[in-house]
Amino acid sequence: MIRYKVTLAYDGTLFSGFERQPDRRTIEGVLTQKVNIMAKNPDPAIVVYGSGRTDAGVHALGQVVHFDFPFDLPTKAIYRGLNSLLPLDMEIKKAEKVSDTFHARYDVSGKRYVYRLDLGEFKDPFKRNYTGNWRFPIDIERVQTAMKDFIGEHDFSSFVASGSTARSNIRTIYEATAYLDKEANEIRLEFYGNGFLYNMVRIMVGVVVEIGSQMRPEHDILRLYDVKDRDQARRTMPASGLYLKKVYYEGEDPQHPTKIPKHQR
Amino acid sequence: MIRYKVTLAYDGTLFSGFERQPDRRTIEGVLTQKVNIMAKNPDPAIVVYGSGRTDAGVHALGQVVHFDFPFDLPTKAIYRGLNSLLPLDMEIKKAEKVSDTFHARYDVSGKRYVYRLDLGEFKDPFKRNYTGNWRFPIDIERVQTAMKDFIGEHDFSSFVASGSTARSNIRTIYEATAYLDKEANEIRLEFYGNGFLYNMVRIMVGVVVEIGSQMRPEHDILRLYDVKDRDQARRTMPASGLYLKKVYYEGEDPQHPTKIPKHQR
Repeated sequence: MIRYKVTLAYDGTLFSGFERQPDRRTIEGVLTQKVNIMAKNPDPAIVVYGSGRTDAGVHALGQVVHFDFPFDLPTKAIYRGLNSLLPLDMEIKKAEKVSDTFHARYDVSGKRYVYRLDLGEFKDPFKRNYTGNWRFPIDIERVQTAMKDFIGEHDFSSFVASGSTARSNIRTIYEATAYLDKEANEIRLEFYGNGFLYNMVRIMVGVVVEIGSQMRPEHDILRLYDVKDRDQARRTMPASGLYLKKVYYEGEDPQHPTKIPKHQR
Repeated sequence: MIRYKVTLAYDGTLFSGFERQPDRRTIEGVLTQKVNIMAKNPDPAIVVYGSGRTDAGVHALGQVVHFDFPFDLPTKAIYRGLNSLLPLDMEIKKAEKVSDTFHARYDVSGKRYVYRLDLGEFKDPFKRNYTGNWRFPIDIERVQTAMKDFIGEHDFSSFVASGSTARSNIRTIYEATAYLDKEANEIRLEFYGNGFLYNMVRIMVGVVVEIGSQMRPEHDILRLYDVKDRDQARRTMPASGLYLKKVYYEGEDPQHPTKIPKHQR
């Protein structure tokens, strides 16, 4: 068996999220089906392991999965073969051979997410599935100041949706930036950290836009760390604006090389 | 009755084109329904007149319609009211009051279309509904040279799909440009002329990409004008790449002020 690491992009609009579910169109479900077709449907079937889930409607520019394939094919054959079989809203970006100790989920050392926030009064018809929307006047400098409060190791208990199965809510954020694209009338928020809890980015964005629109004090994030109360963060921004941009593995980023300790995952 | 001129954008993906049809979701159908709801469903119903049709899957950044409304509302009320009623894949960009001699179709002096051509080996999942795709090596300078052959008054009989009801196939193209966006890995083709025949832009793009990829001689467009034979233009590029960008009315463009003569429409 040869282990392949595959990087893929998808438009999450028409998927019920990443995780396989009966009778639902999911990323894992479609990918598993196509990988098995390519391998002539072996028994037992090939299992596809993702770096983690994305919710319904969330997009990916660089999701990562691994699987063990029965034939030693060149990476180009995996790349082309899967792309030919996959539907148009999924695309393989890269296929690599990896050692059979590599694990797409357990070896993650970090993830990078982008959130696209459209500021139009009415939702642009070309952006409805690809951005979240915020109609209130917003001060980009206030947003940028607030984003800095995310950097570092914090207890994100106020920023996790119910249903999370994580052992710990402690996560470290390495980068958190906000950029106003005037031409597109959008704010792009980018987050890079060692791990993210269930709905965490969408809740973080909900808090920073409220700070940017004077609905919360400038450093309310510091207070939210203390209170550890999800109800005080209120807003979960729409899935349509969220993109999993990149998954980092042990050693890939020399500044932040190590994976998250198992007891925190 | 007050006549309003309304400029709108739409994502054509989920519409069966512009023209009203029973049991189909069309731009004209949805818009007519919402305008009549806003006017409290008068009898006879308000009729919406478009600048012309767009096909199923074709998008608009600046389609124009007019209608006569029973109440004298401020343009801002028309703008906001319609935007609140319309589905998320349509958006009113502008509402204006016009004289009751203005006609959205008969007073058109020109139209501007853009075609987005993705050059990726596999179709980008975020572009599948928003670009056409061309996988062959293509020389942008050859494309640009070919585009110049469109400029001027020509007989476009080789560039019209069967089913056209136009009285004449003579049209004048004022501008025809091609631009390679390396970062997006796309060619953007832009056409501005006094009128376009059925499927004409998509057929024109099919010919220039074949020229750009050495499948036709550099000035094959000149030969196609002469032969007046649609079969020789072959390819109609996908609707998903085409955008109606702007509709011009008499006098709006000082360089090309007059509308197309009625016998040519």
